[in-house]
Formats: sequence, C-alpha cells, structure tokens
Amino acid sequence: MIRNSSPIDRLIDLMARLPGLGPRSARRAVLHLIRKRAHLLTPLAEAMTEVAQTARECLNCGNVGTSDICPICTNEARATGLLCVVEEVADLWAMERGGAFKGRYHVLGGTLSALDNVGPEDLRIPQLLRRIGAENVTEVILALNATIDGQTTAHYIADQLEPQGIALSSLAQGVPIGGELDYLDDGTITAALNARKRL
Amino acid sequence: MIRNSSPIDRLIDLMARLPGLGPRSARRAVLHLIRKRAHLLTPLAEAMTEVAQTARECLNCGNVGTSDICPICTNEARATGLLCVVEEVADLWAMERGGAFKGRYHVLGGTLSALDNVGPEDLRIPQLLRRIGAENVTEVILALNATIDGQTTAHYIADQLEPQGIALSSLAQGVPIGGELDYLDDGTITAALNARKRL
Repeated sequence: MIRNSSPIDRLIDLMARLPGLGPRSARRAVLHLIRKRAHLLTPLAEAMTEVAQTARECLNCGNVGTSDICPICTNEARATGLLCVVEEVADLWAMERGGAFKGRYHVLGGTLSALDNVGPEDLRIPQLLRRIGAENVTEVILALNATIDGQTTAHYIADQLEPQGIALSSLAQGVPIGGELDYLDDGTITAALNARKRL
Repeated sequence: MIRNSSPIDRLIDLMARLPGLGPRSARRAVLHLIRKRAHLLTPLAEAMTEVAQTARECLNCGNVGTSDICPICTNEARATGLLCVVEEVADLWAMERGGAFKGRYHVLGGTLSALDNVGPEDLRIPQLLRRIGAENVTEVILALNATIDGQTTAHYIADQLEPQGIALSSLAQGVPIGGELDYLDDGTITAALNARKRL
C-alpha cells in the first residue's frame, strides 16, 4: 500500500471507527481535513485533546459535561421535584433542544435487555431510586425510546416507583409534527387513533 | 443551551463540518468518542496533531503524504515513462487500491470549469506538461471522472499533448463488475454496447 502505516493511514483507520463513517468516508474526511489544515484539522485536534482531558459524567444525573455536577443539576431555576428519565445523553440533549422541559434529568445509560444481559444494576437505576428519595421528587417522566427494550425498561421503573406514590408519565405517542399518514407505520397510526383528542 | 461554548460544544461544531457528518451525526460521534476516550478519542487527537504537522503535497505529483516527494514518485520499481492523470488525491488512492497500475501519477487538483472560473493555471496542468518533457513520458492515461467537467479537462489535456506524439488513452467505459443492466443508466449501456468486445 502507498500509505502503509503512515500517520495519514492511522488517522483514516481511526476516523473509520466513528459511527456514521466507513473507510470510504473516512478517507474523504481526512483529505478534507488536510486541505483545511489551519481552519479545521488543527482546531479539531486541539478540541479533541481538550475534551479528552476535561469531559466527565455528571455524578448526579449522568449527563456529559466538563464538571463533576452538570450545569442542569446546578441550575437552581430548574424544578427539583420533576425528573425526566432518558436512555442516553443524546436523548437528554434532544429534550433540551426542544426547550419545553424545565425539570432535571436522569440518564440511565441504556435499557434493560435480557438478550444482552443488561440488568438494573448495569444501568443507573439504583442511583435513580436514591435520587427520588434524596431530592424529594414528586413526578417522573419516562422519556424512553418507543422500542421494545425502552418500553420494558419503562415498565420496570414504573413497577419500582409505583409503591412510592410518585406521579408517573411517559411521552405521548402519535403523529409527529409535519408527519404524513401515508409514511407512518401502522403501530403509530393505531396509537394516534387510540389517543385521539377531542377538538 | 446546556453545552454553551463548552469544549464539547466546540468539538461538535467542528465535527459537523466534516464531509458526510451533519450536526446530528456529529453529536453521536462526539458522545461515542467520549465513551471510548482511551481507545479512540485520545489516539484520534494524537493522530490529527501528527497529520497536521507532517502532511504535505508531493512536489512532483500532488499526492498527499508525509514527505516532499511521495513514495510512489521515489519508487524505482514503477515505470517512469507511464503517467496516469487523475483529478484528486482520492482518485489516486482508488487506483492504487485496484493495484493494476504500475506507473506514476499526476494529480490535477480538480477539473477545468468555466462556471467556477477554473482555468489550466489553477490546476497542476503546467506542471504536467513540464513533467512530460523532464521525465521522458511516452504514455499518458487520462483517468478523469466520467463527468462533463472531467471529460472537458481530458479533451483539453489531449489537445496539449497530441502534438508531442505521446500515446494517450482514457479508462474504458462500460458495465461495472457485478453491475446489473437494469440498474444502469442509458448512457452507460450505450457506451458498453458501442465498445462491445468479440468473444
């Protein structure tokens, strides 16, 4: 090979391991980076070095940030009694982009899965139960993905919380904003029909 | 925003500027990097820093490598009289993966384009003409893309080289290996028919 074990070769191999990139797009990306060395490659290398040194999980909620307790958990303007449970940090960020939720979060770090041998102790479920007592949580929103594993996990958490008299809810299911019925799956249409709202 | 001007935020913004990644896949990639800090993020930061410091264009052919003259140009086993002209470094790498070409390359750095105001002087065409004299090139293969700009550029170079009595060729056009006729465009089928081979 022409690029045999050169730094460029190593960079391509590493880039190809990112989600969403394969060998071909990694090569394209690396050539792009080399062309934009001053404006993209060097800043990117610096940003990665800084993130590698500073990124950490919030000890409270599991969000990813650069401090031991994340800005959401330390923000006193956010309701403490209201907790939104999500699977992954990406889901927390998606909720925040929506901007409608003013409480705090708890990131599970995945879903229960018998197949993959993931039990409650492998997720941040024990921490969730501790937080609910310690932070006087009165309402929990289970914003888990509408997948089988997500819903199994939601049921498990609901079973744990029910005896404590906490208000529980999950995100509504229905037609997405801008969605066209013809492109929706049958399950979504059925769910939207069953949860229809009177005008 | 929750990640306001944090290093993580900056990294996401930079990653989103890579070809093939958008804001959403950049967020996914950054969360993946943070999870795989030791095995992916740190090595990637180091590889980027090294490439930023060492990557350079081959002064002879335009290939990207880590030396002033690339390993292909310095490889004495490769035929010097045979030159393959490609548009971009990615095309050179694609030819090398094929492994069938044993001559040397010349990377133009793009195609002629009246629309984008790209003339011969903006590409490495003057260098190509100089090399042909200096390196006793007897055969030139124009491996340019089968696009209008690619073919325009091929015709321009052919016009320049014809008076010099150099053997000129272009890549064959036809059905790709494994290609199904039903999925090919009409132009390719016509080209393959016109260039049919007797069995």
